[in-house]
Amino acid sequence: MASLSPLDPVALAQSLIAAPSVTPATGAVFDVLESALVPLGFAVERFIDGEAPDGPVENLLAVRGGSGKHLGFAGHLDVVPPGEGWTTGAFEPRIHGELLYGRGAVDMKGSIAAFVAAASAVPADAGTLSLIITGDEEGPAEHGTRALMRHMEVRGVTPDMLLVGEPTSVNRLGDMLKIGRRGSVNIWISVPGKEGHVAYPHLADNPIPRLIRILARIDAITLDHGNALFQPSNIEVTNLHVGNPATNVIPPVAEARLSIRFNDEQRGENLAAMITALVQEEAPDATVTAKISGEAFRTRPGPWVDLVAGAIRDVTGLEPDRSTTGGTSDARFLHVLAPIVEFGLCNATMHKRDEAVAIPDLHALTAIYRTVIERGLAK
Amino acid sequence: MASLSPLDPVALAQSLIAAPSVTPATGAVFDVLESALVPLGFAVERFIDGEAPDGPVENLLAVRGGSGKHLGFAGHLDVVPPGEGWTTGAFEPRIHGELLYGRGAVDMKGSIAAFVAAASAVPADAGTLSLIITGDEEGPAEHGTRALMRHMEVRGVTPDMLLVGEPTSVNRLGDMLKIGRRGSVNIWISVPGKEGHVAYPHLADNPIPRLIRILARIDAITLDHGNALFQPSNIEVTNLHVGNPATNVIPPVAEARLSIRFNDEQRGENLAAMITALVQEEAPDATVTAKISGEAFRTRPGPWVDLVAGAIRDVTGLEPDRSTTGGTSDARFLHVLAPIVEFGLCNATMHKRDEAVAIPDLHALTAIYRTVIERGLAK
Repeated sequence: MASLSPLDPVALAQSLIAAPSVTPATGAVFDVLESALVPLGFAVERFIDGEAPDGPVENLLAVRGGSGKHLGFAGHLDVVPPGEGWTTGAFEPRIHGELLYGRGAVDMKGSIAAFVAAASAVPADAGTLSLIITGDEEGPAEHGTRALMRHMEVRGVTPDMLLVGEPTSVNRLGDMLKIGRRGSVNIWISVPGKEGHVAYPHLADNPIPRLIRILARIDAITLDHGNALFQPSNIEVTNLHVGNPATNVIPPVAEARLSIRFNDEQRGENLAAMITALVQEEAPDATVTAKISGEAFRTRPGPWVDLVAGAIRDVTGLEPDRSTTGGTSDARFLHVLAPIVEFGLCNATMHKRDEAVAIPDLHALTAIYRTVIERGLAK
Repeated sequence: MASLSPLDPVALAQSLIAAPSVTPATGAVFDVLESALVPLGFAVERFIDGEAPDGPVENLLAVRGGSGKHLGFAGHLDVVPPGEGWTTGAFEPRIHGELLYGRGAVDMKGSIAAFVAAASAVPADAGTLSLIITGDEEGPAEHGTRALMRHMEVRGVTPDMLLVGEPTSVNRLGDMLKIGRRGSVNIWISVPGKEGHVAYPHLADNPIPRLIRILARIDAITLDHGNALFQPSNIEVTNLHVGNPATNVIPPVAEARLSIRFNDEQRGENLAAMITALVQEEAPDATVTAKISGEAFRTRPGPWVDLVAGAIRDVTGLEPDRSTTGGTSDARFLHVLAPIVEFGLCNATMHKRDEAVAIPDLHALTAIYRTVIERGLAK
């Protein structure tokens, strides 16, 4: 049985930040995590999946115990690129006052450190804990959590409840947890025409007016009005592209890209089919390509959601909003395995320069996670 | 008085083609033309105007005689880039069968050679001839014919009638001359928004739907129905640009570009003002930039048009269509000086690979130009 001298989440977060891991990630940052987990009694398996440009991606599955209730914690060690303008290096963890700076401080090396620290404070025989940690949550996620789930199936790793450590808090640690996510589909529309000179439009066929009619019709669509748990589904046109440098040329093709974030009243494939039909009414020879990143899902109200919310309330005094807002996360894959709740640090600085976590929040999150583990495994 | 042994238009066309002169042009190609003109009794002035990227541009003004009627011939020695796929070098003139190949063969080194050959066959005391030749008709034309017109004003060079050697013939030499051109205005529309994440559209402001509404309204505009001399005015959207690589980002700006080719019922500045007002109704903070390449113009029916048409008919047996179709030319500047007619070679291969002129056409054009000169100066 592993030692119960609790691990310091701040020191582990610093070590994780100091290992650069822009998505897709492999190597050193996983070494750091493995080195922290093995002394706590976790059996650690790591494997690499995929090739450039979406990979290689490293994935880590760590399991401790094998009886009793099983709580799985999911997260990612990859980070978004640091971008410009950091006060000091994005991968040089720096403490200034109450803040620990560095890329990944809140999204989500900090919460992984907090969970490991929480696990270090719980006896290994209290039940089963697993960490399901990928190196590609921020990228296309082709070789990340889905590969981990296949690996878990082979190994017979079947959590009874899942906690995702994404930064769900908004203004104060504990003000929001997530019990579901909207789905997401990206759609590419390409309308062909016939190139020609603007002085002779009758010899050409400009695809742009057809694309405009298509987008005007799409802009007029109301998908739904939302419901008690979800915002209304929303369509954004995120890009237009013709790429014609010549002022006197009618271009041969016009393209647009849509992003639809949708609630549980929609299905990605139905949305793609609806857009395809609309496009082809206006432009029968147009091509429409859809990529569904994830369907909408939500965790039914029940003891697992109540347990996490209660731990948050007991540590912070806040009643967390049970939300389905925001972007996607790997919960879109994992929710099929067990009831799933997402809870983590404040997300104000995630993906931004000078990303930082409040050190008191790291300690409070460790306490929340410890409470969740103790109560979850005790049930 | 200069010799009257007529110059060979084919040999001169070959020499001009052999001097590469992608727009903007200076130097060797002008040396070739000057060498041909001086022995014919022309006083030649050359000057260079402008700087990169629109320049330097060489311009040439050649005048012979000083009394009697004055016929001005306008043209350009610059050519469009050769592009790919030529059978042999674009600047290596090659005769194969009846065809002389090379960039500029029809647009318009061939017609300049024909005019010089025609002038060589007309006594120098028959009247006044001028050649108004620029090195930038194919480019922005900022430092070309307009600079030549200022120079002509200073020198007191005032033609009574103008002939432009652009390739106006379509299927057979002589089937079309031009008595006017549509105007042209390019308009750039830039609609600003507020960048953000597609998962949080309420925190962003997508400019694309506004641009779509603007373009849908523009697409519905009928400017006019044309008239006896002109086609209807026409608006084409020639480009869309957002440049957003990220599928999950609402972009900060959306842009479009219009090309309007308009007849003599419109004015470029009125069109620009109309579009600007429409855009700003939908997007008050949008910017609209208009660049008027030229206003529409036409030469009134009269003896000069009839004279050129008669010379064409007498040499070719064809009655030329008196057209205002097609793109712009430097006639858009020159028409303010004197009645203007454009007539030249067949335009089927202009701006294309393996541009070629039929050698019999070069000789026939020389005969037409000679007839035009003789009748024009005799009037």
